[in-house]
Amino acid sequence: MKLIGEKLKVINVGARSFYESIVAQGGDAVHVDWRPPAGGDPELARLLDGLQIPEIDEANRLALERMLSALPLLTEVKPAIEAIPGMKEDIILHPGPPIDWERMCGPMRGAVIGALLYEGLADSPEKAEKLARKGEISFSPTHHHNAVGGMANVISASMQVFVVKNNGKSYYSVVREGKNLRFGSFSKDVIDRLKWTEEIFGPSMNAALAEGGPIDLRDLIARALHMGDECHSRCIATTLLFENELIPRLLKADVDREIISQIISFLKEDQNFGLCLVMGAAKAITHNAHGIKNSTIVTAMTRNGVDFGIRVGGLGDKWFTAPSPSIDGIFFPGFGPEDASPDMGDSAIVETSGLGGMAMAAAPAIAQLKGHKDPYQSAIKYTMDMYEITFGKNKFFTLPALNFIGTPMGIDIRKVAETGIVPYINTAIAHKEMGHGLIGIGLARAPMDCFTRALKALANKFG
Amino acid sequence: MKLIGEKLKVINVGARSFYESIVAQGGDAVHVDWRPPAGGDPELARLLDGLQIPEIDEANRLALERMLSALPLLTEVKPAIEAIPGMKEDIILHPGPPIDWERMCGPMRGAVIGALLYEGLADSPEKAEKLARKGEISFSPTHHHNAVGGMANVISASMQVFVVKNNGKSYYSVVREGKNLRFGSFSKDVIDRLKWTEEIFGPSMNAALAEGGPIDLRDLIARALHMGDECHSRCIATTLLFENELIPRLLKADVDREIISQIISFLKEDQNFGLCLVMGAAKAITHNAHGIKNSTIVTAMTRNGVDFGIRVGGLGDKWFTAPSPSIDGIFFPGFGPEDASPDMGDSAIVETSGLGGMAMAAAPAIAQLKGHKDPYQSAIKYTMDMYEITFGKNKFFTLPALNFIGTPMGIDIRKVAETGIVPYINTAIAHKEMGHGLIGIGLARAPMDCFTRALKALANKFG
Repeated sequence: MKLIGEKLKVINVGARSFYESIVAQGGDAVHVDWRPPAGGDPELARLLDGLQIPEIDEANRLALERMLSALPLLTEVKPAIEAIPGMKEDIILHPGPPIDWERMCGPMRGAVIGALLYEGLADSPEKAEKLARKGEISFSPTHHHNAVGGMANVISASMQVFVVKNNGKSYYSVVREGKNLRFGSFSKDVIDRLKWTEEIFGPSMNAALAEGGPIDLRDLIARALHMGDECHSRCIATTLLFENELIPRLLKADVDREIISQIISFLKEDQNFGLCLVMGAAKAITHNAHGIKNSTIVTAMTRNGVDFGIRVGGLGDKWFTAPSPSIDGIFFPGFGPEDASPDMGDSAIVETSGLGGMAMAAAPAIAQLKGHKDPYQSAIKYTMDMYEITFGKNKFFTLPALNFIGTPMGIDIRKVAETGIVPYINTAIAHKEMGHGLIGIGLARAPMDCFTRALKALANKFG
Repeated sequence: MKLIGEKLKVINVGARSFYESIVAQGGDAVHVDWRPPAGGDPELARLLDGLQIPEIDEANRLALERMLSALPLLTEVKPAIEAIPGMKEDIILHPGPPIDWERMCGPMRGAVIGALLYEGLADSPEKAEKLARKGEISFSPTHHHNAVGGMANVISASMQVFVVKNNGKSYYSVVREGKNLRFGSFSKDVIDRLKWTEEIFGPSMNAALAEGGPIDLRDLIARALHMGDECHSRCIATTLLFENELIPRLLKADVDREIISQIISFLKEDQNFGLCLVMGAAKAITHNAHGIKNSTIVTAMTRNGVDFGIRVGGLGDKWFTAPSPSIDGIFFPGFGPEDASPDMGDSAIVETSGLGGMAMAAAPAIAQLKGHKDPYQSAIKYTMDMYEITFGKNKFFTLPALNFIGTPMGIDIRKVAETGIVPYINTAIAHKEMGHGLIGIGLARAPMDCFTRALKALANKFG
């Protein structure tokens, strides 16, 4: 009876609705956001239990060390066919886990058509489509070549790629042409701009790098994080800092002043251009931790608009996939969720490296853009959630809003499965039909199934 | 007896020590930071009471409107003698409220010597000093000419000034040469660099602006505040954004590529260069609210290393002064507070306009640099304090960390006197002897006496 007689002080654990009804009745309650481990799945919980072992922790420590020791340098800009080993004129590299033409989403098909028109392999969209459908073109996932492309940005032979080097290995990030190929457009201005990147931008950039030396991308990212960029949806400072490194090199390399002006205009028009550089750096960083026996750290997340796939450091080159999620987004006027393609592109490599949605605390402006009423608190909350699923922090990439602690780094599939928290991914939204382009921006969540599948595969290895 | 029997719940108002002793004994207490209005001075409280009148509020609303309507544009770079009306070869403009050679602090004397050597009016520091002492040079405060100079940066006839225009009026901010004239150095590299700004930088900049059009400084500042600058001690983004506006103009104006490279190197070496632009803009913004009858809004704060002075919108051109404060700072190795000159320079115009120390929430990095263990929370606290003494907010200058509310703007001397809170000013520390340069950075507080003196003058006007 004493319990009933006294004023209740409630600590509610778990289902939030109990807490809310107490508060609604004027009661005093504190809510603890708790969920049963592994979402209450006893089988998964048992597997997880078996994976809390020193060998894995040790492997993950090594993975984190490797990520931290990566020093990605931008060294060259070359056509894909010159830069990427094994690249051929009849191969198109596509973002995301493996997919063939039949299963490809609209915008990626549009980008393939754009690439074929640009390469002169077809002279009309219809012919391009026929060529792709007949199987005269082979498709191969970008990641299988240590390459990355944003959204639907496929890579064909003549397209320019940024070459990022780390520890003797090369990684390739396609130069986005700043029109809408990456959203599936193949209009004349896309093709013209691709020609411009091939004839003007690429060679000038390459001369600048040869003359002025490589650009340290880790330093660029570190500085951009202190300048309001989370380095995915917001790369404004990244782009400015890149330009700041680039222009003296262009001048030194005696690039024509008219061309320098064109490059400056190009970067002004596409303020988020720096994302291609971040993607190249993120691929170099994360891949450095790939192939470590027993590691449960995610080394790639990517999507092709149909499937979402992850790779795990200790699980070889296998992709663990699930359907690509829809995006919680803000749409341009006239568009809505029914027009949207599911999540797409290799840019989730940025989150894999601990930036973008993982480092949202660096960029309340993105939370504001996504419609949050309290953008600052929301941004902090996103990043705080991500510490729950990462193995460590990146001492080079620090967050002013969190008193300069490091970004969450090293997504551990064990922690994802245990907490039920999946990575946040900042992303753009493409129209689901080819040729329509960008229709909004938003936030996606990596699908849980990728992580649980990987976890089961690992548990199998341990028997 | 009931009071004693129950568990105490204490709200402590005023002296913090009571609160702390309750907490130390395990008690439960909330502290309210309250001080008696006007610091408990009954005379001042009575005056304040008489100034809570609609005429003043109305005048202040107009002052804020005027500040908000200012659109400072960088239009030209010219030698002071061409740009500033009434400027002559034997006049030196000095930062801060009026002062003569006899009372000048060491670093300002050093800067005067540097200016005379640079102008060729003396060929040795000794002769320069003699010239200044004999009164053959006249001194006049920068602000009396709508000009500003950082730290001890005096302005002589040939020095280059940025011309900032607003609503038909011109304001002048001296081009800092990036060596240490502004800290009182007059070594050969300072003089050489001044020559370079005169012969190379100024004319090229001016050609660039003539060819490419003015640069919108309000927009520049607004963007920089979203990129980690508070726009006084940290102007890294400001400088980058300026460069980003400048280079296309230099290219367009056919400035020689070797000169463009020199200008880029110059801006790389002095990453805080953008401060001169912010100062020019801040002068244009604040002066737009000067001369409004009955306004209690501060329209200038400045210091010469000896006196700190403020001007108030409704109190004409009179300076209300008090001794310049010492600076709570972090010193370079080998230096300490005993080596420091008191607070100095016109850069407090930045705080007058609601930036710098007032907008610290934009730049936790500065709070970190100043040695705070919780830089983010400290930065927020600084800005929150400033809302206590300002009349409004600047809708153009917004703070991501405060969910994009405007910076505190329009320091109201009534609120300063009432709350006992004086403006925070981010500042550098010069050695007190001439010729030694920069020895640290820190935070100064505007002296309360300036504000109470102004308040009394206003009360006298009202009788």
